[in-house]
Amino acid sequence: MKKQILIDMDGVLADIYMQLVNYEERATGKKLDLKSLEGITESKAFSTYRECLSQKGFFEDAPVMDGSVEALEYLNEKHRVLIVSAATEYPNSLIEKQNWLAKNFPFISWRQIVFCGVKDFIRGDAMIDDHLRHLESFSGQTKILYAQPHNVGSISDSVVRADWREIVSMF
Amino acid sequence: MKKQILIDMDGVLADIYMQLVNYEERATGKKLDLKSLEGITESKAFSTYRECLSQKGFFEDAPVMDGSVEALEYLNEKHRVLIVSAATEYPNSLIEKQNWLAKNFPFISWRQIVFCGVKDFIRGDAMIDDHLRHLESFSGQTKILYAQPHNVGSISDSVVRADWREIVSMF
Repeated sequence: MKKQILIDMDGVLADIYMQLVNYEERATGKKLDLKSLEGITESKAFSTYRECLSQKGFFEDAPVMDGSVEALEYLNEKHRVLIVSAATEYPNSLIEKQNWLAKNFPFISWRQIVFCGVKDFIRGDAMIDDHLRHLESFSGQTKILYAQPHNVGSISDSVVRADWREIVSMF
Repeated sequence: MKKQILIDMDGVLADIYMQLVNYEERATGKKLDLKSLEGITESKAFSTYRECLSQKGFFEDAPVMDGSVEALEYLNEKHRVLIVSAATEYPNSLIEKQNWLAKNFPFISWRQIVFCGVKDFIRGDAMIDDHLRHLESFSGQTKILYAQPHNVGSISDSVVRADWREIVSMF
């Protein structure tokens, strides 16, 4: 049976860490090592975090997460996929995020895109997100924490931590 | 008990008919009378409909619907309000709509805003929308069709047709 799968953008489809490392290096001259950032929130790990997110082009030029295009093509064929991104806190990111999706995931239609502030009102069977708080407020059955440096060590009984290679094998 | 109320923007908070009549008059020189447009879809009623929606400023300068500010202040105090707008079909409308909300409804936070393509995945107790199709796919209990010229004559057993004055008295 077709499942409704909610998929986050930042840190799941978009490789926000790679973008933050690049922006931080450009601003401070210091290249951070991802290994040293494990278990630390992004806003603490990157001294320029807030400024980065407000910079023009930050979201539109973000690198694509390894394996995400093939995984999403597969899931989109087999299930009903909705892209759900917390974006309204940074209104300028809205058009950048939609342009980014159109460029990198052209098989995703505007009907499948949701930009919001919180995510607790969205129905679905599965949610893939790199932030535990969104998974904890999700009412569906399958909760997948997309493996990212900040969520190393984040655990919860009802949540599985995985990357795209592992996720594809679950559906 | 607090209810979760989903509220549409176009034709509910924003007076899109007034804006369309003005834009159409500017383009064709002909001022349409709302009474003559009853029961006719917006895209048939206005010859310049698609062009209007794509024009810069169309959403950002839209007039505010009569009674909507006071009604929303009241509902927002008493319940949990989410503004849910179909916007991703016109990506340039995203920032205009968020700016418009910030200007005209400053008490609505970015946490309460949802921009999407379809609305059938959103949970709530009540939905206020001027399009029957969104109400028909809504899983909540209370379905309110906001009275607009195009939905004159639209009927459905589970739906109440009302304007802001009437809606306030229901909550």
